[in-house]
Amino acid sequence: METKQVMVKMILDRWNALTKNCDTILNAVTDEQLQKEIAPGKNRGIYLLGHLIAVHDDMLPLLSLGDKQYPDLYEPFLKSPDKSGAVVPSAKELRDIWSKQSEFLAQKFSSLQPDEWFEKHSSVSAEDFANEPHRNKLNILVTRTSHLSYHLGQLVLLK
Amino acid sequence: METKQVMVKMILDRWNALTKNCDTILNAVTDEQLQKEIAPGKNRGIYLLGHLIAVHDDMLPLLSLGDKQYPDLYEPFLKSPDKSGAVVPSAKELRDIWSKQSEFLAQKFSSLQPDEWFEKHSSVSAEDFANEPHRNKLNILVTRTSHLSYHLGQLVLLK
Repeated sequence: METKQVMVKMILDRWNALTKNCDTILNAVTDEQLQKEIAPGKNRGIYLLGHLIAVHDDMLPLLSLGDKQYPDLYEPFLKSPDKSGAVVPSAKELRDIWSKQSEFLAQKFSSLQPDEWFEKHSSVSAEDFANEPHRNKLNILVTRTSHLSYHLGQLVLLK
Repeated sequence: METKQVMVKMILDRWNALTKNCDTILNAVTDEQLQKEIAPGKNRGIYLLGHLIAVHDDMLPLLSLGDKQYPDLYEPFLKSPDKSGAVVPSAKELRDIWSKQSEFLAQKFSSLQPDEWFEKHSSVSAEDFANEPHRNKLNILVTRTSHLSYHLGQLVLLK
């Protein structure tokens, strides 16, 4: 197996395992539990779920895979903290979006060839990328996988 | 920059950023706070710190970088759940071990050449590795980085 292919598999395996892990947690908690704070005074489960969707949605333009699908979630789940009073989708709606998005991203990711993962992502200039080749598309997925893992460690506390 | 070198940098950057993140959290909480549960009925901060040290210690033999340095932490922080009644080091002792270990691992990791990171780790057979080249040393660091991020999302709740 070619080196780039091996590396892409390593990172995609991790991403897929963690999204599945999130599915497992979501299936184990009720909508009422999702409305609760993960610890006293901290973010609610529903906020973390919306936050993950918004961050993952932002990968589409970063990876030149298309426009955001849920731009309305940017303001309440990325720009604003939890309990800001913003009108947000229900737990049920967010669960549906999460499932659709996971499937959509998995498809998009599997369509990228190993070489493409090592191309520059859309928020780095060609000049900077020449000196910093680690600022590639795969690194976007590496950092978002780490971010997902961080919040899964919190969501699991709702169980 | 050669592809393997780029990939190793991506993963080491993530590992280093997260260990630094852990330092920041540890510096922001007192020993008393570390003794508290991250959420009602969940693991205590001190257990998570010991758990991270034990998991990271186990990377040394897996990466053929030497023997474990803290084998006594295996039983209380990996084999046993929190509050098992095991005698464990104090918060101050665990903080010291964490710092020493982070520095030691950073040195060891920087001594590995890119090609070496793509060699098989010690718990996979040569035969299996021939078919599954993703089971390399770098993948050990990928999965441990993900694990560290998961528990950092919990430790930060102590603040």
